[in-house]
Amino acid sequence: MSLTDDIARGPLPAWATIVEVGPRDGFQMEAGFIPTATKIRIIDALSAAGVPVIEATSFVSAQVIPQLADAADVLAGIERRAGTTYLAMVPNRRGADAALAAGADALKFVVSATDAGNLKNVGKTVAASLNELSLVVDLARTAGRPVHVVIGLAFGCPLTGDVPPAAIEHIVARVSAAGVTEVAVADSYGFAHPEQVARMMTRLKLGWPMVNFALHLHDTRGLGLANALAGLTVGVTRFEASLGGMGGGPIIPGATGNIATDDLVHLLQGMGVETGIDLDRLGDATRQVQAHLGRALPSKVAASGTSAALFARAHRGGPS
Amino acid sequence: MSLTDDIARGPLPAWATIVEVGPRDGFQMEAGFIPTATKIRIIDALSAAGVPVIEATSFVSAQVIPQLADAADVLAGIERRAGTTYLAMVPNRRGADAALAAGADALKFVVSATDAGNLKNVGKTVAASLNELSLVVDLARTAGRPVHVVIGLAFGCPLTGDVPPAAIEHIVARVSAAGVTEVAVADSYGFAHPEQVARMMTRLKLGWPMVNFALHLHDTRGLGLANALAGLTVGVTRFEASLGGMGGGPIIPGATGNIATDDLVHLLQGMGVETGIDLDRLGDATRQVQAHLGRALPSKVAASGTSAALFARAHRGGPS
Repeated sequence: MSLTDDIARGPLPAWATIVEVGPRDGFQMEAGFIPTATKIRIIDALSAAGVPVIEATSFVSAQVIPQLADAADVLAGIERRAGTTYLAMVPNRRGADAALAAGADALKFVVSATDAGNLKNVGKTVAASLNELSLVVDLARTAGRPVHVVIGLAFGCPLTGDVPPAAIEHIVARVSAAGVTEVAVADSYGFAHPEQVARMMTRLKLGWPMVNFALHLHDTRGLGLANALAGLTVGVTRFEASLGGMGGGPIIPGATGNIATDDLVHLLQGMGVETGIDLDRLGDATRQVQAHLGRALPSKVAASGTSAALFARAHRGGPS
Repeated sequence: MSLTDDIARGPLPAWATIVEVGPRDGFQMEAGFIPTATKIRIIDALSAAGVPVIEATSFVSAQVIPQLADAADVLAGIERRAGTTYLAMVPNRRGADAALAAGADALKFVVSATDAGNLKNVGKTVAASLNELSLVVDLARTAGRPVHVVIGLAFGCPLTGDVPPAAIEHIVARVSAAGVTEVAVADSYGFAHPEQVARMMTRLKLGWPMVNFALHLHDTRGLGLANALAGLTVGVTRFEASLGGMGGGPIIPGATGNIATDDLVHLLQGMGVETGIDLDRLGDATRQVQAHLGRALPSKVAASGTSAALFARAHRGGPS
């Protein structure tokens, strides 16, 4: 069950699915309102780059997150690309109703691993959120849409400290029993180390083989991509990431962002793991966000370029 | 030979040796002269934190690198801690003579993997550097001191593109034949990906079992710690890193630094790999450098703190 055990270890997977969370997780951390047309343009640039799953917005109270008050307009305005799944985050039944009416392909529901963290994030205990999830799943099922779940603070909570794996297993058991088959496990504040990721994901995959587990990683302590690698080597093939590394976390001021989609795709492509994403076109989307925000995003590949691009220039005869 | 093959794979090692290169590789990239007393204070803080090997300075022409013109004074001024090895970089026999006279515990010699890169870095072809190395080894042997070698650009050259593994094997064969048993393999501009690191290091370890191979990694594309993890999982137990992530690279303007010692030690400690380094005291050294330079260094752990520290605060009852 560890990074170096043989169990659950095969060759590196040939394909990994990237879930782009920037338009929701990234944009919601921005203080200045991003015009709806700009949001739509970025989401369309992401789908044009081949990103298969995009967490496009959140149907949450406009009082709580004014940045995403235009959720329905965003879903109405984007160009629906065949083969792209557009997710909408929903905190409760009301949000689920609105997201389904607005045509979200699937709903995303968050529950944090600790009561303290979940109360801070959505104002409910874990048990209350799990009850709400059942109602959201029922609504979505009636509409013929799936619900994806992300378990926040799965590798540690800034309010209560370390989180026992049994707490995650308890939530996964409930979520799976509700009929959810897409579960992301989130290291929301960048506490995890690779061995911990490998153990947790192996344990979950063996325990719930019918669930497709994803990793949602933050780079707060520089371990985001090392943790993604650890997940990949134990067979995780679905990763949430944010364009340019946008994002943060609401519980700790100054918490840093998600792993950058740009850097993750560069890592995977380098190792021969296909994602269907055109890294050059993804870079265009990152540059559009940077231009709008007027600042560089954390992505290192966005800043330094890919090895492949630099080598191509070298082979044409000049240095960089 | 790959990340997911069983060959060369055992449990994670219990111990890894950190080679701190900041006082040489980091300081030499700083434009403003760092007073000798400050350099000495930082090196002493590193040894006090338990860093076992410190690349303390370079005996290079003061015209080429004015920052390190005080090499002999630095070696004379530091407090020699029992159990700490103080390395001095030397580009040639003259430097080796001076370093041995100044009391360096061991010499460090760099050769890059490509002629273009080596000419740019030290003004010699690879063959000429390997000849110089033999003379340096002879001098050091007479003085009863070892020579360590670092092979630069081993995972790609910004001037010529990708580097075939055979080129590295050719250099390792020559270096090993000269009697060198400590060889660092450097991804000087952050081109490598983890699978490439795992294959290269496995190949070298199997080919030269008498050589103790180290990895010298840069974080230019965000893969520094993922590459360290890849090396660790195939049994590499020696890593070069720089306090706070100082450093860069002379061939490409704006090249970013070494992996941060702070972040690497945090990664290793989290996974139960001991280094003998006190992370809190290491943080003191980083803060001293940051205070002197008047800017934050790239280390993410220096910016965010360790998970352990945050959890301890959480358990005492407050958030961060």
